[in-house]
Amino acid sequence: MTDARSLVETLNARYVAAIDDDRLEEWPTFFTDPCRYEIIPAENVEQNLPLGVFFADSRAMLNDRVQSLRRANIYESQRYRHVVSSILIVGEEQNLVRAEANFLVVRIMLDGDMRLFMSGRYRDVVDTSGATPLFREKRVVFDNRRIDTLLALPV
Amino acid sequence: MTDARSLVETLNARYVAAIDDDRLEEWPTFFTDPCRYEIIPAENVEQNLPLGVFFADSRAMLNDRVQSLRRANIYESQRYRHVVSSILIVGEEQNLVRAEANFLVVRIMLDGDMRLFMSGRYRDVVDTSGATPLFREKRVVFDNRRIDTLLALPV
Amino acid sequence: MTDARSLVETLNARYVAAIDDDRLEEWPTFFTDPCRYEIIPAENVEQNLPLGVFFADSRAMLNDRVQSLRRANIYESQRYRHVVSSILIVGEEQNLVRAEANFLVVRIMLDGDMRLFMSGRYRDVVDTSGATPLFREKRVVFDNRRIDTLLALPV
Repeated sequence: MTDARSLVETLNARYVAAIDDDRLEEWPTFFTDPCRYEIIPAENVEQNLPLGVFFADSRAMLNDRVQSLRRANIYESQRYRHVVSSILIVGEEQNLVRAEANFLVVRIMLDGDMRLFMSGRYRDVVDTSGATPLFREKRVVFDNRRIDTLLALPV
Repeated sequence: MTDARSLVETLNARYVAAIDDDRLEEWPTFFTDPCRYEIIPAENVEQNLPLGVFFADSRAMLNDRVQSLRRANIYESQRYRHVVSSILIVGEEQNLVRAEANFLVVRIMLDGDMRLFMSGRYRDVVDTSGATPLFREKRVVFDNRRIDTLLALPV
Repeated sequence: MTDARSLVETLNARYVAAIDDDRLEEWPTFFTDPCRYEIIPAENVEQNLPLGVFFADSRAMLNDRVQSLRRANIYESQRYRHVVSSILIVGEEQNLVRAEANFLVVRIMLDGDMRLFMSGRYRDVVDTSGATPLFREKRVVFDNRRIDTLLALPV
């Protein structure tokens, strides 16, 4: 249990550091290919509604998203700061670890305004077969229903 | 030290996941019977005032609280998201581990409003004698003095 | 990796507990002497501007700061609550561990007002040669540009 949690903790720490440091081009490299990445409201998960606000199932799709963000220059005007806690290993089979964790994202705008932007739970499936663990699935289940139109950065 | 912290970390992760996921009926099962659970403002702790805003010393009392919450349907209108960090083992004796940790609670309302609701420190005594560690004591020492009247959910 | 992270996690947990509990006099004892402690905005780090909002390179300077804070009685009117997460070991050499971690600070005012005060990243160099690990460097790189004039407490 401890080793799996330590591994997931480090993977998530590297993952959020890349996003918070504006190293967006590294973001797709944290995933297997194919993969599953989605951002979905908690109420949809509860009601078994499959639709989220973002979905990707390959590195190519994740790379596309990064290119769009770079073109739109959105990252110039805002930054994120992630806090991840309470990592829980919910399953282990062969080279796959299922883990969950709570997260908060603080958004910092260019004018210095800082606010709590999103809270929720990561539901991850981590592939540990390679030299570096990778996300085979990362479902970002968020609590707050009102989606900010600026929601564009990876979470 | 590491093993005890890992154990307390996992226990708190399971505990907050149960609350945040609305599995309130599981809440009392995280405690020994008898137990001590209380929510108390930091200033009362500093001034040695024993009164908090909630106190229970048995699973029956915790179960009563859950039943009240279910009847009042409060959980329909709000959710919590806990963040727990900086777990510190402050004592170990036989089958008891004393631990402290910082926490934040974000509250998400039905209309999507999300805000920082409470910050504070868990002061836990964990009984490790059984198959699953349990809270013998959980003192929720919170920082913010203004108590929201909706304070009703477990923290 | 796990051992170094556990060590840094415990050091930071003790460090923030001392600050949050108003045991400011202990704050300098978490550092080597000489040391490097600074609070610096993220944009200055990115632009290689060396100037931060606070700098100290010895325990004497840190002690001076504590004395000033005590004289000004600032700590009577506010408290902090730190959350530290996603600790990442970025280097290890002999008795030095380089580590980074995300943090949030919530500030609680005397009147009960509580708000998100600062977010950012610790960039630490930890000296592990002695009986107790100490910060040889602690750089507090914060995200929010607008500095509150009450910024005075250790972070």
